Amino acid sequence: MKRLTGTIDTILKELKNENNLSTSLQVETEVKAIIDKVKTIGDQALLDFTSQFDNVQLSELRVPNSLLQAATAKVEPAFLDALQQAKTNIESFHSKQKQHAFLDNEKDGVIRGQLIRPLETVGVYVPGGTAAYPSSVLMNVLPAKIAGVKRIVMITPPGDNGVNPYVLAAAELAGVDEIYQVGGAHGIAALAYGTESIPKVDKIVGPGNIYVATAKREVFGSVDIDMIAGPSEIVVLADETANPAFIAADLLSQAEHDILSRAILITTSEKIARQTQIEMDKQLEKLPRKAIAQKSIETNGHIIVVSSKQEMFDIMNEVAPEHLEVQLENPMNYLYQIKNAGSIFLGSYASEPLGDYFAGPNHVLPTSGTAKFFSPLGVEDFTKRSSFISYTKEALAKEKDAIVLLATKEGLDAHAKAIQIRFEEEN
Amino acid sequence: MKRLTGTIDTILKELKNENNLSTSLQVETEVKAIIDKVKTIGDQALLDFTSQFDNVQLSELRVPNSLLQAATAKVEPAFLDALQQAKTNIESFHSKQKQHAFLDNEKDGVIRGQLIRPLETVGVYVPGGTAAYPSSVLMNVLPAKIAGVKRIVMITPPGDNGVNPYVLAAAELAGVDEIYQVGGAHGIAALAYGTESIPKVDKIVGPGNIYVATAKREVFGSVDIDMIAGPSEIVVLADETANPAFIAADLLSQAEHDILSRAILITTSEKIARQTQIEMDKQLEKLPRKAIAQKSIETNGHIIVVSSKQEMFDIMNEVAPEHLEVQLENPMNYLYQIKNAGSIFLGSYASEPLGDYFAGPNHVLPTSGTAKFFSPLGVEDFTKRSSFISYTKEALAKEKDAIVLLATKEGLDAHAKAIQIRFEEEN
Repeated sequence: MKRLTGTIDTILKELKNENNLSTSLQVETEVKAIIDKVKTIGDQALLDFTSQFDNVQLSELRVPNSLLQAATAKVEPAFLDALQQAKTNIESFHSKQKQHAFLDNEKDGVIRGQLIRPLETVGVYVPGGTAAYPSSVLMNVLPAKIAGVKRIVMITPPGDNGVNPYVLAAAELAGVDEIYQVGGAHGIAALAYGTESIPKVDKIVGPGNIYVATAKREVFGSVDIDMIAGPSEIVVLADETANPAFIAADLLSQAEHDILSRAILITTSEKIARQTQIEMDKQLEKLPRKAIAQKSIETNGHIIVVSSKQEMFDIMNEVAPEHLEVQLENPMNYLYQIKNAGSIFLGSYASEPLGDYFAGPNHVLPTSGTAKFFSPLGVEDFTKRSSFISYTKEALAKEKDAIVLLATKEGLDAHAKAIQIRFEEEN
Repeated sequence: MKRLTGTIDTILKELKNENNLSTSLQVETEVKAIIDKVKTIGDQALLDFTSQFDNVQLSELRVPNSLLQAATAKVEPAFLDALQQAKTNIESFHSKQKQHAFLDNEKDGVIRGQLIRPLETVGVYVPGGTAAYPSSVLMNVLPAKIAGVKRIVMITPPGDNGVNPYVLAAAELAGVDEIYQVGGAHGIAALAYGTESIPKVDKIVGPGNIYVATAKREVFGSVDIDMIAGPSEIVVLADETANPAFIAADLLSQAEHDILSRAILITTSEKIARQTQIEMDKQLEKLPRKAIAQKSIETNGHIIVVSSKQEMFDIMNEVAPEHLEVQLENPMNYLYQIKNAGSIFLGSYASEPLGDYFAGPNHVLPTSGTAKFFSPLGVEDFTKRSSFISYTKEALAKEKDAIVLLATKEGLDAHAKAIQIRFEEEN
């Protein structure tokens, strides 16, 4: 962990997260060509690209439903039980996010309102390979279910032994409607434009590599996408009451994800800073993913000792972390000082992995400082709003002159005329 | 207006809106170069590009606040009054969209919740030239105000006589904090990355030409943006009770915007179809923007006579129009059949321009079929959510085994360890 010192400005400069989520022109060009081919020749392109990129010869894109049930039967009951508990917690939290339609008729002859409707079809991308995360399946699918999405289509690249059974079991538990074993930019193109086998969806969610991310950005507008994710991060705020062993363990749990992950401790206590460093060195030794975690904390791990809580929150709000742990005495007191953070963990026992898996809030979170303007994945990401109005002739009569004046000033006479014609004698 | 006949499938194929919102590689390359220059040399780049693209030599980027007050004083009181009435309606509607934080403590020792926070700084792009729309200023700024955004920055390209006074008066009325006279891709770059004069914002909203749209897409991720807008459209649903003169006027009010605008009538009545056509020809003659409207309806105007209401709604939901007028008897009865539409106008007197200017719902709407997944601009577009959790040791103890099992199955041992360490004796 690097010690950062100096003024807030110099510290922020050092921490500056050149939030470069754009891709190279080369990847972009490749991805565009892949998308075009899928648009033109459909399923055959998917089979060709799967052979080319995944080294798998598929005879069928669709994973038969019988395989889902078989996977569920194969998986240990304790695992299914844990997944079921997580599901219950995720559902009870996300149910509270449901937005409601409204209608007002405060003015005579005027009705105004807003409808909330689920998206009809959603595509969920699940990465393949070593990073098979059943928890991600729940986090992406359950909010869509709660929103009322009727058709949830999952795609995931095939491995040598087909699709990971834990992922299949999670998909079955979450209620995915159909699964196709196809990944990469070609999989995204299939969801965006549809092929003979794969339906065109309204929105694509889920994480993926640079090809997947670039393809999502490319098809954005033809379909909606979730946020564009960069390396993830954790900020731990600690005072002298915090437990250095807990802090170290939580920082490492972030660091083990990826060498680009960022783990930052901001503390008012020099003692906590020193002890956390010692704890990290100790705990690191025992980690199976030590190589990744070590590289991550060496390059992107920071300890900052500040002289006040104000300074602590000023730095944190600028970093706008994906995960924020508040290991301060009476942590609830500081809730109102948090402006920018994806998911907030209050107190010594709200450890970050508790949120990753279990507590209920979503673990798909804004990264790389985008918590300043993006939100955790939620039910509203799977709905859309529509507004509606109804006016009587009398109600319109009261407002017509103002509308005509505004339209005329904007040079839009047909707009003015559409109002006026409703009051002409012959109509 | 072209008559479309045949099966739903052939009609939809004809109506198919190749929703091509992507830009040419040439524009993209130009825009990337502009953005890079603004990132590197800041204000000077803005002055240079303004000279190059707008033919205006600026001595200052900021529009002095005194000019706003002067513009307000210059504008006719009746116009200001109309704008004020529109503002009141827009505010009262959007206030109902406010989301609320929640907190639950249903389980012993567990607190979970969600915060809603305003974005801190928002940039509003207002196009210049002939298309100066004070109503757009209100529609983009007021939801941000209601969300609680503290700093609202407007940019707009300068004309030969500076910024349009109606736009300035609307900005003053809406409560814009500062205005810069700069437009184009360079203006968007300034908002996304900041310059000496212009602050970096969290989100950019507002319509613009292809350079502005491409720049917004390019900076997406470094900041948030509103939707990507394509040509706009209106669908009118009419039965034999509808008034052909009203229908024609409303279709034309959409057609006068742009030759790419689409105006579509779907009716169960052959008589209404014929009479609307006659009315359009008649009304078109008197329009100042006849050339645009005529071209628009010739290329993108359609009349479809259907045999049932079901067919009507099936076609409409696939088109997913920006504006939908329901000129059917008892229009409220059909609300539940509308799945995809940005803004809905119920009955003979809810004319589309009433929504554009006055009724209260936003006129920044999803276009080109994107109402399937995008929503009207609203208060929530200017907020972000954060989730939070707090657990006691006892509460975590109950769930720890399940969490450890899930983490271990995903191969993330440091995640498991972060939970386990909290129950080791020495801690």
